[in-house]
Amino acid sequence: MIKDHTPYYAVIFTSTQTENIKGYTEMANQMENLAKQQDGFLGIESARNDVGITVSYWKSLDDIKNWKQQTDHLIAQQRGRIDWYNWYKVRICKVEREYEFTKKH
Amino acid sequence: MIKDHTPYYAVIFTSTQTENIKGYTEMANQMENLAKQQDGFLGIESARNDVGITVSYWKSLDDIKNWKQQTDHLIAQQRGRIDWYNWYKVRICKVEREYEFTKKH
Repeated sequence: MIKDHTPYYAVIFTSTQTENIKGYTEMANQMENLAKQQDGFLGIESARNDVGITVSYWKSLDDIKNWKQQTDHLIAQQRGRIDWYNWYKVRICKVEREYEFTKKH
Repeated sequence: MIKDHTPYYAVIFTSTQTENIKGYTEMANQMENLAKQQDGFLGIESARNDVGITVSYWKSLDDIKNWKQQTDHLIAQQRGRIDWYNWYKVRICKVEREYEFTKKH
């Protein structure tokens, strides 16, 4: 087993989109690049089919709060509510335990 | 804002697959149906592109432990390590806060 880095924090962002996703991909890429520059950023994983799931990982709850309030991110959030998302849910989580598997070749 | 149901628990399962995914979809569907019958199950969300993310939600850490040890699920996990996954990571999380947005039509 690989070293356990817990505790740290995860933001699970689950969403469904509208039909009007013009500008979404560019903004999502911008926000991902911006998130990577924030204090306390640890990583991000995304996938989308019927539902989109983005999980970002952070050192502390304060880091998450600062990212939520970051000016450009606030604008992106507002744009998301107006144009891109029918629904979303945000869950702030404490990662208490983790383990990992890597295939031996 | 919709009612906050925290605290509860989330298992974030992130994975990358091998080229040999024969039987995977059937097993994933079976495991999802089986998970839904377990005590303490609250919900599940999945998406896959380059990376697959499945998040399942549970009332307690004991419910998560019981699901991990469920016999058919143990067999599926072993099959996953042998055939389907190049890599996976499991994170056990406490959901501390949540909020939700639904578009007004």
